[in-house]
Amino acid sequence: MNIFVINSGSSSIKYQLINMPAATVLCSGIVERIGMDDAVIIHKTFKDGKELVKRETVEITDHTDGLQEVARLLTDNEMGVISDPSAIAAVGHRVVHGGESFAVTTIIDHNVKEKIKKLFPLAPLHNPLNYLGIEIAEKLFAGAKQVAVFDTAFHQSIPPVAYRYAIPANFYNDYGIRAYGFHGTSHKYVSGKAIEYLQKEVSKIITIHLGNGCSITAVNNGQSVETSMGLGPMNGLIMGTRCGDIDQSVIFYLVNQLGYDIENVNAILNKKSGMLGLTGMSDNRDIRAKIENGDKEALLAYEMYAYRIRKYIGAYAAVLNGLDAIVFMGGVGENDRLMRKLCASNLQYLGIELDETHNQRRLEGLQEINSTLSRVKILVVPTNEELEIATQCYRLLSSVTPY
Amino acid sequence: MNIFVINSGSSSIKYQLINMPAATVLCSGIVERIGMDDAVIIHKTFKDGKELVKRETVEITDHTDGLQEVARLLTDNEMGVISDPSAIAAVGHRVVHGGESFAVTTIIDHNVKEKIKKLFPLAPLHNPLNYLGIEIAEKLFAGAKQVAVFDTAFHQSIPPVAYRYAIPANFYNDYGIRAYGFHGTSHKYVSGKAIEYLQKEVSKIITIHLGNGCSITAVNNGQSVETSMGLGPMNGLIMGTRCGDIDQSVIFYLVNQLGYDIENVNAILNKKSGMLGLTGMSDNRDIRAKIENGDKEALLAYEMYAYRIRKYIGAYAAVLNGLDAIVFMGGVGENDRLMRKLCASNLQYLGIELDETHNQRRLEGLQEINSTLSRVKILVVPTNEELEIATQCYRLLSSVTPY
Repeated sequence: MNIFVINSGSSSIKYQLINMPAATVLCSGIVERIGMDDAVIIHKTFKDGKELVKRETVEITDHTDGLQEVARLLTDNEMGVISDPSAIAAVGHRVVHGGESFAVTTIIDHNVKEKIKKLFPLAPLHNPLNYLGIEIAEKLFAGAKQVAVFDTAFHQSIPPVAYRYAIPANFYNDYGIRAYGFHGTSHKYVSGKAIEYLQKEVSKIITIHLGNGCSITAVNNGQSVETSMGLGPMNGLIMGTRCGDIDQSVIFYLVNQLGYDIENVNAILNKKSGMLGLTGMSDNRDIRAKIENGDKEALLAYEMYAYRIRKYIGAYAAVLNGLDAIVFMGGVGENDRLMRKLCASNLQYLGIELDETHNQRRLEGLQEINSTLSRVKILVVPTNEELEIATQCYRLLSSVTPY
Repeated sequence: MNIFVINSGSSSIKYQLINMPAATVLCSGIVERIGMDDAVIIHKTFKDGKELVKRETVEITDHTDGLQEVARLLTDNEMGVISDPSAIAAVGHRVVHGGESFAVTTIIDHNVKEKIKKLFPLAPLHNPLNYLGIEIAEKLFAGAKQVAVFDTAFHQSIPPVAYRYAIPANFYNDYGIRAYGFHGTSHKYVSGKAIEYLQKEVSKIITIHLGNGCSITAVNNGQSVETSMGLGPMNGLIMGTRCGDIDQSVIFYLVNQLGYDIENVNAILNKKSGMLGLTGMSDNRDIRAKIENGDKEALLAYEMYAYRIRKYIGAYAAVLNGLDAIVFMGGVGENDRLMRKLCASNLQYLGIELDETHNQRRLEGLQEINSTLSRVKILVVPTNEELEIATQCYRLLSSVTPY
């Protein structure tokens, strides 16, 4: 079964065509800078063990243009991997916000589209573009099932005691203001891999997604019971440009005492904070280079990033009343050995002991990097959201259609 | 040495006259509803083992009026405990915000007053009134040393990794935007008592102040290393009317999607949230009565309040890399047995085990309420901010003046 996975963002579309259940990636790519003069498609085809890359700079005025061009490449003479769009059984759409309406992966029909539309206010930057992607794909791949995989779905098992805020109850009852959490597909995929590896009947796991966005989730027997992002994707851990947790008094101080406009504060906390705000750089590789040159501000930023994670590990060990494993994933989690070391240090009381030799080893699939004495496993698991989306689509369709 | 302790608030002044080092309270009282038609002074005198109470309703147009009337009561024929204002050696002022200028209790001179003034923007609701109290006391008790005891001072030992926010560095460098923490006098007093009781060379303690305001502090060998309140006294734990920690996205949602004015949002999060927002009531005794009648929202609020505390206990155990004791204090911490039970439950992984019989016992001074098997001590310690202020004044003056 060929499943086409689409992640439709503000000025880009990422995609993969995956054959299931073999999980073979037939092609993948990204359309970037949609609507700009220098729009580009980078398309990779994997055939007979070889990778073909095509970089096209064509006029792409909007998302429809972009997806049309991608559809053409799928059946292109040179780069194509299928003969006809009808060879695609399902299009799996990453949809950021499923609110309380969607706890599972869902086949898209008119009703589902209306519900996704209703959730626009909760994710005004993301859901409208995911919705647009669905509308275009419905036309381009008319024979395929359209499937929505929600970034919030995995976290719908979080109980009220964790997802409610201590604000007037009507804000929840009337407007759905609560913590939803994000990166759910990634946390689900990686916690699943970790549980397989641990082979325990009952498991208490903390999954730590560290990329541009960062979040951490407490997973009890495979179910998310608490996560660090809330109503929006800005709080919790320190990120590349997002501040993570911050005293709300800072916002009122910036507005009332320093005269900032509220929208400006929002932009600062989202786009100019985090590691960028602390060091002037948002990429951990650049910051590490500064640390090696003895830069104290860079070192402080690294220590703050890790300290915040350690506090969450402690808090989630309390939520779970115990801990079997912590799992690192995402660009930083999978590659930044110094950061992993800082995150796993000074937690001996929990039985967390890193083995630095294992930590330094080059990553190949799931890896255990704790010492043999560590009571808690420390794992690194490469995340794969696209594969998880394809897997969920495959499982859903296998159970409902006689494909 | 007679020390007069003043806590000057927006519409009230609380005071105690304490003889040190015996720690004998000679009199105490409160001036309430200053500037309103129904202003009142409740003054208690303790003489020869007896308590005399006088309730005066007099015209009190401002703080000067109020303190003048209190000064008169101190030497009153019937209620007086001293013959002359000069019998007061020091006036100890509770000052809410000491910023980074004050890490210790300080004798007030012109320079100190200027610094307190400079901190008005950080505590616009509190420091100006504390300052006013100082100016009035300087006139009324001209022979006494004026001493400032800062609510933030105990937390000045918190390291940058914990007090900095992940926002552009200039906000800290230019404006001092960072976490300061509050309730320091109370956390210092209670952690001191707990350390005395534990008789350990090295100690890792979490002090939990639960009153109208609530905060929690990690104390490493007697030093505050992290606390839940930040730049302002609104975040961290869930309080009577304050929301505690909340995703900052909620603020932007209320402003952008629901059209709230930013000042209105500030007021809602400070005065209409917390237990009040969740249940319609801010007093835990009322909420407990509802729980007993099977009210589910009231129970959820109680569980959220305790859940938040448990998460902080976990986080601070990680900060301390271990834990010897947790200490409850404040009106709720000292009296609410159900809340203590919820806070100490489901933390067996940390070795926290409550003994419910001890928990139910009537409180007389410091009390240990853990089971004999508990690896972590659970203590209840009645806090006494006024005594701590008097003690700090006494120590300071004993070391610098030949009184």
